Amino acid sequence: MSKVYLVGIGPGGPEHMTAQARAAMERADVLCGYTVYVDLVSPLFPGKETYSTPMTRELERCQWALETAGRGRTVAMLCSGDAGVYGMAGPLLELAEGMAEVEIEVVPGVTAALSGAAVLGAPLMHDFCVVSLSDLLTPWERIETRLRCAAQGDFSICLYNPASKKRARHLERACGILLEYKSPDTVCGWVRNIGRAEQSSRILPLSELREAQLDMFTTVFIGSSATREIGGRMVTPRGYEVRP
Amino acid sequence: MSKVYLVGIGPGGPEHMTAQARAAMERADVLCGYTVYVDLVSPLFPGKETYSTPMTRELERCQWALETAGRGRTVAMLCSGDAGVYGMAGPLLELAEGMAEVEIEVVPGVTAALSGAAVLGAPLMHDFCVVSLSDLLTPWERIETRLRCAAQGDFSICLYNPASKKRARHLERACGILLEYKSPDTVCGWVRNIGRAEQSSRILPLSELREAQLDMFTTVFIGSSATREIGGRMVTPRGYEVRP
Repeated sequence: MSKVYLVGIGPGGPEHMTAQARAAMERADVLCGYTVYVDLVSPLFPGKETYSTPMTRELERCQWALETAGRGRTVAMLCSGDAGVYGMAGPLLELAEGMAEVEIEVVPGVTAALSGAAVLGAPLMHDFCVVSLSDLLTPWERIETRLRCAAQGDFSICLYNPASKKRARHLERACGILLEYKSPDTVCGWVRNIGRAEQSSRILPLSELREAQLDMFTTVFIGSSATREIGGRMVTPRGYEVRP
Repeated sequence: MSKVYLVGIGPGGPEHMTAQARAAMERADVLCGYTVYVDLVSPLFPGKETYSTPMTRELERCQWALETAGRGRTVAMLCSGDAGVYGMAGPLLELAEGMAEVEIEVVPGVTAALSGAAVLGAPLMHDFCVVSLSDLLTPWERIETRLRCAAQGDFSICLYNPASKKRARHLERACGILLEYKSPDTVCGWVRNIGRAEQSSRILPLSELREAQLDMFTTVFIGSSATREIGGRMVTPRGYEVRP
């Protein structure tokens, strides 16, 4: 069998993996992925062969997975969160174009929008957008357009990759754009290191989020106009039924 | 202990549940939820007490869960997909306002946007919006505004609740709005009964999606302008790196 599983492992701990994700890794001959994820997962499968590459080598890793599967070995490619949300499912399916002999199965997982939302309360209860602030593969103008549209639609917004060393001020710029449309009191929140021992989080207004110094291990949530803080949680009402 | 777990069980089968979701249900004294979900899950926990109510009784069920937890019993409230995406986390946290004695923990799960995307390929690889077409709790005008904003932002769009007996023409109306902004050739897809034995799916252009007769068990995906069909899968490129 020539097969690549694209496995979303969730935020990292074994408790966040689905049974299907675990079974796919169990069935694989080799686990492949970004070094950090391979190191997280490999203790669960003692003796299993692994192949890891640094973060910037995604396409090389996909190529390796397809070639390895082409030689009849079953590969599980690990992605944090969900393989289909800023993960490896897209690039791998693109690279596999025309390689009918390799079967590709996407195994979904809990992406940071969901695991982070659970930490904060229920910020994504109603319609929402997910936007990455990374301009490595996307022109900043397109990111800005999407932020404007998300704000005009009064969506709850989840931001991935809010900052890094190279894009230290992206979150500030994004909040500045959102503040053209949204109240500075809009309820927002962030979660860092979701699901890990050092997890931290905070709920704060949009005006303060603009000044926050966050990093690439953080996921950010911006409420709709209906989002409220209730008992220390960030909650976007699903409808109007609970209000008195 | 007074505790309510809000448990996202994923699309339904035990293979889609996280270990954390299973552990929460194991620890609970009683499993509560919409009849269909309780019936799906209860065989995994023989002898466990259950409390189920029909679909329209959500608030009653939340009230029951809080009262039951208030009497010292641990309740697991089951939600399909993720508890925080059109689920029970919002209403429960709203109703629990001021009830400091009841601890509420949201346990995330794989929502239909992710499980359906995995079936089709990788339609949500880049920025995306999730919009429900149900106007039970949301005025249609607001849904329409969000569709327009999602289209103007060139997001990939995932539609929940595309149709039901009472809203048979909502999908047609939504596609009509999107066609004001998007090409009729935009790559779209739908998945019905995700993760179940009778699962079915199709990839089709937006012009044909408009005519599709779907039901409430279906999740719909509408591509961005970059989305392509590759080897029978729906793929939204993550960036520009793979293109020659």
